[in-house]
Amino acid sequence: MSDAMTAVLRVACPDRRGLVAAVAGAVLGASGNIRAAEQHSDPISRRFFQRMLIEVSSEQAEVLRVSLQDLANRFAMAWRLDLQGHQPPVALFVSKQLHCLHDLIDRFDRAELAGRLALIVSNHEVGIREGERHGVPTLFTPFGDRSVAAIEAEQLAALAEARIELLVMARYMRVLSPKFLQTFSGAVINIHHSFLPAFAGGKPYHQAFERGVKCIGATAHYATDALDEGPIIEQDVVRVSHRDTVPDLAQKGRDVERVVLARAVRWHLEGRVMVDSGRTVVFA
Amino acid sequence: MSDAMTAVLRVACPDRRGLVAAVAGAVLGASGNIRAAEQHSDPISRRFFQRMLIEVSSEQAEVLRVSLQDLANRFAMAWRLDLQGHQPPVALFVSKQLHCLHDLIDRFDRAELAGRLALIVSNHEVGIREGERHGVPTLFTPFGDRSVAAIEAEQLAALAEARIELLVMARYMRVLSPKFLQTFSGAVINIHHSFLPAFAGGKPYHQAFERGVKCIGATAHYATDALDEGPIIEQDVVRVSHRDTVPDLAQKGRDVERVVLARAVRWHLEGRVMVDSGRTVVFA
Amino acid sequence: MSDAMTAVLRVACPDRRGLVAAVAGAVLGASGNIRAAEQHSDPISRRFFQRMLIEVSSEQAEVLRVSLQDLANRFAMAWRLDLQGHQPPVALFVSKQLHCLHDLIDRFDRAELAGRLALIVSNHEVGIREGERHGVPTLFTPFGDRSVAAIEAEQLAALAEARIELLVMARYMRVLSPKFLQTFSGAVINIHHSFLPAFAGGKPYHQAFERGVKCIGATAHYATDALDEGPIIEQDVVRVSHRDTVPDLAQKGRDVERVVLARAVRWHLEGRVMVDSGRTVVFA
Amino acid sequence: MSDAMTAVLRVACPDRRGLVAAVAGAVLGASGNIRAAEQHSDPISRRFFQRMLIEVSSEQAEVLRVSLQDLANRFAMAWRLDLQGHQPPVALFVSKQLHCLHDLIDRFDRAELAGRLALIVSNHEVGIREGERHGVPTLFTPFGDRSVAAIEAEQLAALAEARIELLVMARYMRVLSPKFLQTFSGAVINIHHSFLPAFAGGKPYHQAFERGVKCIGATAHYATDALDEGPIIEQDVVRVSHRDTVPDLAQKGRDVERVVLARAVRWHLEGRVMVDSGRTVVFA
Repeated sequence: MSDAMTAVLRVACPDRRGLVAAVAGAVLGASGNIRAAEQHSDPISRRFFQRMLIEVSSEQAEVLRVSLQDLANRFAMAWRLDLQGHQPPVALFVSKQLHCLHDLIDRFDRAELAGRLALIVSNHEVGIREGERHGVPTLFTPFGDRSVAAIEAEQLAALAEARIELLVMARYMRVLSPKFLQTFSGAVINIHHSFLPAFAGGKPYHQAFERGVKCIGATAHYATDALDEGPIIEQDVVRVSHRDTVPDLAQKGRDVERVVLARAVRWHLEGRVMVDSGRTVVFA
Repeated sequence: MSDAMTAVLRVACPDRRGLVAAVAGAVLGASGNIRAAEQHSDPISRRFFQRMLIEVSSEQAEVLRVSLQDLANRFAMAWRLDLQGHQPPVALFVSKQLHCLHDLIDRFDRAELAGRLALIVSNHEVGIREGERHGVPTLFTPFGDRSVAAIEAEQLAALAEARIELLVMARYMRVLSPKFLQTFSGAVINIHHSFLPAFAGGKPYHQAFERGVKCIGATAHYATDALDEGPIIEQDVVRVSHRDTVPDLAQKGRDVERVVLARAVRWHLEGRVMVDSGRTVVFA
Repeated sequence: MSDAMTAVLRVACPDRRGLVAAVAGAVLGASGNIRAAEQHSDPISRRFFQRMLIEVSSEQAEVLRVSLQDLANRFAMAWRLDLQGHQPPVALFVSKQLHCLHDLIDRFDRAELAGRLALIVSNHEVGIREGERHGVPTLFTPFGDRSVAAIEAEQLAALAEARIELLVMARYMRVLSPKFLQTFSGAVINIHHSFLPAFAGGKPYHQAFERGVKCIGATAHYATDALDEGPIIEQDVVRVSHRDTVPDLAQKGRDVERVVLARAVRWHLEGRVMVDSGRTVVFA
Repeated sequence: MSDAMTAVLRVACPDRRGLVAAVAGAVLGASGNIRAAEQHSDPISRRFFQRMLIEVSSEQAEVLRVSLQDLANRFAMAWRLDLQGHQPPVALFVSKQLHCLHDLIDRFDRAELAGRLALIVSNHEVGIREGERHGVPTLFTPFGDRSVAAIEAEQLAALAEARIELLVMARYMRVLSPKFLQTFSGAVINIHHSFLPAFAGGKPYHQAFERGVKCIGATAHYATDALDEGPIIEQDVVRVSHRDTVPDLAQKGRDVERVVLARAVRWHLEGRVMVDSGRTVVFA
């Protein structure tokens, strides 16, 4: 193959006998080579999910697309084939706490993440300055006397212009409207600084301190209308003790927030996350 | 010292200047030797907590008790001195799930825990058989047509007779009445099979599955009137994935339940846990 | 299917295009249904490994076996199909430390492990008594004046008679001879009480203490001629501090030893572990 | 107290009866207030270590110093009293891998670390540029045709001029000479990208891959003449699997390297780390 490349194939459909053979057969029929594959048949939802890493030429990819469309009709299968080199443009939303932003910028710089950092949006000047310092386009949307609708309209226009495919709320302390989230359905990842469903809402470290928990956590999830209730992508915790004050919890929490959010963003960009009735399938 | 032994001294009082010097001075005045000491001055409650491991003879211990009573008056200090060899009698309450019971029996056998297993209480015959197999006295209190009050009266009588100092709910699936808990205030440890405050109540693994969390946890806490809201002693988590069904969560959860409960029981029996307005100070 | 059952299919062979489609096709051709599948194409060894959970009747299983034999010839493929209900007989070897033995007995009792506890072998009477107490056949092989060869011959005879398929060294403090291990090649799991390759040899907790490490670990691995160098199946660690003495390390270590060994045994019995040039592929 | 401040008092000496009372008495005698205290009596080395957080005025601190000097003579006690506001100048040494450098700069910016970032030394231009971008003084010491002795002399001069009290090797891939390390004895922290003592040397991720370990780790330790054998301050691990290639290990490892190094630096700067015959006492 003169232009052999790696591609990510994802399929999702009602579970049925013969699916694995059918998809593998389509890849083989297009002379593609399966490098890795993972699948999940959910016993509750009765749905089938598969992610394959395949080697194909661009010509073979076209053949494969035709076969997949046949399978789509036969199995009511949703599918998506992303060719190597597709670097989805990503926007980061941030308020005043910059640790997640710094961490993600650093990872984009090191090419750890399979996307392109295309826009930084902030309601605070510190967030904007950080974007400028790294040469990333920025949009400053302070919450002053303008309506939320006007602000969101401006944000949506910028996202559309930059053709953003993933929006990451990297400690963005504003709620996005249902309308906004519908526009980006399944493509907004938020980091919440608690081990959800414990301590939803705005002051999780204060709540954790008052309850006297012995670990604090962080949760990366898709943002949906229902605040802090979207499908969870990743969680982790860190131990704390009676000696930790609220600022201590916040400091320890930052380390776990950064790692949890980074994993979720990486997995999403590599096509490893699929949503199944409010829960995620993560082929990590 | 002909009969030198190790003793655990615990004090708690309003925080004031000079406390550390006063307590250390009392130990020195009694010719005792401090082997280890930990203290905590809580910035919120303004209370002081200290645990010391000291070497004293029984004669010196008497001198120390007199000095401590002086300090008690001067500093409004609660104190307790436990001499080596004091092995508090412990009761285990269990229903049908025996993994925590097995684990604790095993640890008592290996002398990992600074107490004596004196009684096993169960509302199921499997729990009773397990006690008999290990030669531990048992009390069978099935929940049939008798009133809860009658059952608890029988349990309290047995606990009193065995002079129980710590009651461990090792997956005992019945709620103890407020009256019962008052009798044993601060001396009942429960294991809840979730990372509290997430998933309080009776079906935590089902709830965890439905929410799609990526870690499940266990919480050991002192039992109080307010179900699942007593002071937390220890927590830990284990990772799970979309592949785990509810029985899988229960299986993975058992491993973390056992370890979390065992740590809490060990720390309690070693005098490492002190309660401060709904939260615990754990000198682990 | 009148007698539908779940079966585990494992294949291993040189990596080649078309393998996934071929195996999935064979299952489909036998009217089987793939419930779950995992695969790995190793970039270094260039070998392909796959584990499938399939639903088949016993009649379909026969059809499948024929197809698999064809694939075996075509792809130089090793394969194995284990039908539901196959409960491999397991032997546990133990010396004086019984915590891993207790833990595994407990898990066999709860049917957490897909095997049958068929024999307990010990060079100490405490190990034998434990087997008897649980009604498990035992073999007492003390190391006195008999030669190692004579002892191993007796052990091998007992293992053969009980048709043992997996031997677990659950803190068995004797080295098995190369000849013995060859007989049970790939079917002996050992737990080593350190995070290998750190602290190989007989006194890992002493070494860990002297080096002043901040975590201690445990390693479950297949036993091979080269002591403590067999393929690693599972590892985990637990935090320790300057306050921990060697006995404290041993106590904390027991908790991680038990869990690490149990995971390795479970995965092995569920056909999730495959060996690839000194390393393991674990479809956990 | 018009100028009350927080101070950190550290003492170390042979263990003897009366030490705690003596030190607490000295603080009380100077009208200081103990906010927190931790101590350790090592059963092997028979040495006593204590760290106290106290409230004193600058006048009281002078009184305290006099008393401490008395105790120093009486108990062969080494002591150190650091007043609030002392921000030790810190130097970061880095080669081409910048993730630890970025992380530490970020933490200094957020005032998470009780020191002042005063100098960045690198043998690569990328390291220097990073320092310049953040307005930190830099020293470029490429390894070309100059002797190591000449390079180290230049580095030592710069460190002396900046009055550096802590040198952090934040992935600096050059060995410092014994002479250099003697000059900075006990004040050089290195991060090694393995769970020491496993995989000492220059290629730990390659070695980890080849051995097939299931977790990889990082170790922060004081640098000594004996490469990778200095007293360990902190360690942690992260899980890996057969799917992880060497670059994957390096990526996962970076997350644990950063956190482990940051904890070690924080603890050192807060006076929480004391060395006891090749091991550390960490009052974390």
